[in-house]
Amino acid sequence: MSKVDLVILGAGSAGYACALRASQLGLSVVLVDRDKLGGTCLHRGCIPTKALLHAAEVADHVREAPALGIGAELTGIDMDKIHRYRTGVIDRLHRGLTGLVGSRGIEVVAGEGQFVGPNTVQVGERTIEADAVVLATGARPRRIQGIETDGTHILTSDDALTLGRVPSSAIVLGGGVIGCEFASLWRSLGAAVTVVEGLPRLVASEDEDISRQLDRALKRRGIKIQTGQKVTGVERTTDGVRVAFEGDSTAEAEVLLVAVGREAVIDGFEEAGIAVDRGVVVTDERLRTNLTNVYAVGDLVAGPQLAHRGYAHGIFVAEEIAGLAPRPVNDELVPKVTFTQPEIASVGLTEAVARERYGDQITCATQDLAGNGRSLILGSGGMVKVVRRHEHEVLGVHIVAARAGEMIGEGQLLTSLGIAPEAVAPFVHAHPTQHEALGEALQALAGKALHGH
Amino acid sequence: MSKVDLVILGAGSAGYACALRASQLGLSVVLVDRDKLGGTCLHRGCIPTKALLHAAEVADHVREAPALGIGAELTGIDMDKIHRYRTGVIDRLHRGLTGLVGSRGIEVVAGEGQFVGPNTVQVGERTIEADAVVLATGARPRRIQGIETDGTHILTSDDALTLGRVPSSAIVLGGGVIGCEFASLWRSLGAAVTVVEGLPRLVASEDEDISRQLDRALKRRGIKIQTGQKVTGVERTTDGVRVAFEGDSTAEAEVLLVAVGREAVIDGFEEAGIAVDRGVVVTDERLRTNLTNVYAVGDLVAGPQLAHRGYAHGIFVAEEIAGLAPRPVNDELVPKVTFTQPEIASVGLTEAVARERYGDQITCATQDLAGNGRSLILGSGGMVKVVRRHEHEVLGVHIVAARAGEMIGEGQLLTSLGIAPEAVAPFVHAHPTQHEALGEALQALAGKALHGH
Repeated sequence: MSKVDLVILGAGSAGYACALRASQLGLSVVLVDRDKLGGTCLHRGCIPTKALLHAAEVADHVREAPALGIGAELTGIDMDKIHRYRTGVIDRLHRGLTGLVGSRGIEVVAGEGQFVGPNTVQVGERTIEADAVVLATGARPRRIQGIETDGTHILTSDDALTLGRVPSSAIVLGGGVIGCEFASLWRSLGAAVTVVEGLPRLVASEDEDISRQLDRALKRRGIKIQTGQKVTGVERTTDGVRVAFEGDSTAEAEVLLVAVGREAVIDGFEEAGIAVDRGVVVTDERLRTNLTNVYAVGDLVAGPQLAHRGYAHGIFVAEEIAGLAPRPVNDELVPKVTFTQPEIASVGLTEAVARERYGDQITCATQDLAGNGRSLILGSGGMVKVVRRHEHEVLGVHIVAARAGEMIGEGQLLTSLGIAPEAVAPFVHAHPTQHEALGEALQALAGKALHGH
Repeated sequence: MSKVDLVILGAGSAGYACALRASQLGLSVVLVDRDKLGGTCLHRGCIPTKALLHAAEVADHVREAPALGIGAELTGIDMDKIHRYRTGVIDRLHRGLTGLVGSRGIEVVAGEGQFVGPNTVQVGERTIEADAVVLATGARPRRIQGIETDGTHILTSDDALTLGRVPSSAIVLGGGVIGCEFASLWRSLGAAVTVVEGLPRLVASEDEDISRQLDRALKRRGIKIQTGQKVTGVERTTDGVRVAFEGDSTAEAEVLLVAVGREAVIDGFEEAGIAVDRGVVVTDERLRTNLTNVYAVGDLVAGPQLAHRGYAHGIFVAEEIAGLAPRPVNDELVPKVTFTQPEIASVGLTEAVARERYGDQITCATQDLAGNGRSLILGSGGMVKVVRRHEHEVLGVHIVAARAGEMIGEGQLLTSLGIAPEAVAPFVHAHPTQHEALGEALQALAGKALHGH
């Protein structure tokens, strides 16, 4: 039996960030995970999906090359090689992370950790006692009752990530971030793709204009999209799947991807006395559970399931335990990127949420990227939308564009600092870039639009 | 003879922005140009070079594709088609700009305009009288005494832009932005490229660390770089050029690009009474020349020759004339992007300039992108460097990275608003993006670096 300041259950983004910051602040830390350092983000989430999506982007570039005068031919897709590239990226980051954690005197315990009480985590035979416990067990693909995944034709996102072939056709059940990213990926690699979403629109947590833009862009790429569509049954055929929908229609494809969200991994928590509600751990804004000195971070906590949010949670809790009284992480100011082609990047309030809160005080400006020089050069379209409160600050920035992911830093500063468009409208944006359009939207909100609407 | 509020000589970025803003503010405007609306930026500068560089980037993607599992072969470079793509982008933007200017009641006069006095511009037979005159005649490639360009083997950047072939080998005289962009472009299209620069480093107006990174990255791409090297003579050979250097060495190539900067177009200004110094028009910070009601904007004014700076100048002068007392454009806060592969993006003070001004108060943080997940995925390296004044604001942000151009918006806000790293270090950056590294640099400056140095 050992007694430490802090034991962390789960070594994903939230857990390892917490461990690093806590050890930096002089706390003794044990980090427990049944799997590898880095968790979902590094091994089954952000990093591997973006690696696959980059390979897919390169395939698109090869197809578009002749129109730009670059003689090129797409001669095939080698999934084994794509997977080697994917694992190569993961391995390099994993080595870096392992080295970093090792250099900080953090004890890493490999094994299935069990939370057994406010100050105790059990890993096999070993009992770890600590002044504080951080639950950081993450999330896993949500399953749907009545649909059994089989890893070959009916897939979770974990299965889809390591699939050894490009399916000739795919039905993607779920038009959220994960579903849309796989639809974009498979389409670029040559599959016939249909996205089925029960809600009236894709990426429903984004601004409605953004959903509309993405819908249009994916359809232009030949992806079929059925929103407001409910699945009533799934069955295997000889070489694929048949999906039945409400209203008696059916569709067939080689694979079905079930991408209907992710559920928190909270096995055994309730039995150990942790309050749980609708599948997530109940916490206050300081990430305290109902039990003293027990915290929950990352995907266990209601809100957007994003690696960087978990990372921020981890740092917050480490500083909280060390007595630094940090500022809580505000979910509304956590930026989001969807790495479809084109990408979505957003931060802050959607127009709809802003109007619920401030009614008529809300004004918006949108800039179509059709007139943006850099977008034209990239052969991409999209839009930038800025939501503000009249005579007050920017509340939300929403972008659909190629490479939008790198554009959202400016939006994050605007919303996090609560800046009014008038204060920044005179600032000069570099030309020719796509984020000039953000500058133009801010100028429009400040009453100084030079380019018409 | 006609009398208007404002006559603008030159319809490039500075001139047309001035015209648009002035007409928006109710002024009557005549816009004079001997060439097309849009000037250098649209026809011979930013837009066409970035179109060529995007085609080059796609060629690089095709070459790299097999390593990512995308079977592809580069079968040739079709310069005619590349040029059609380039002119297609220009034409579309030109149509948009022409429509916009036309819709605002701005009179556009085609012809060689001559500034003949404080209130008068002459265009052929026509005399245009105005309450105010804005000089916006831009710049052209600087020539070197003793080197005669011929348009086929000894080239200005204007020649290089429309060259009908990819040279097998090229010597680029000048390691500034234009030289490095053409070096990057030609290398991607298959040429053997040598950059010769008289100063000790490439892109000498950038931070030294940035120059070093670019130097390394271009060399890794097989570009030869000779800094601190002076050219003593150039002669044509049967099928190319021979360049002689100080110290009696020589080099041969198919083409020589003379990219030693751009000179302001000020023909006839001095004769008409405009004060000129070292090749540029003398202005105060409100862009007033020595003559009452005569302004100069853009590349005519000492400082960085950038389209977006000219654009901001144009807006400033229109608002100044309209009596809005706008804030002058601060050259130190104008962001710069160099669209080499990798790109450079920067804003604010370099470390050296900051140290000159604030001495020991300066601290810097650099983040190597070798550990950045998104950079690894993109197969690109680079760095982010942030310069700050101790206990005060961020003074400079300097980036070398693939797609850095879209990352600089955040840096521009930080420097323009004069924000301290401590104020923004807790903000969450989206994962996996390259601009996370900017967040990490800010955290390091705030004493909260989680990833080690």
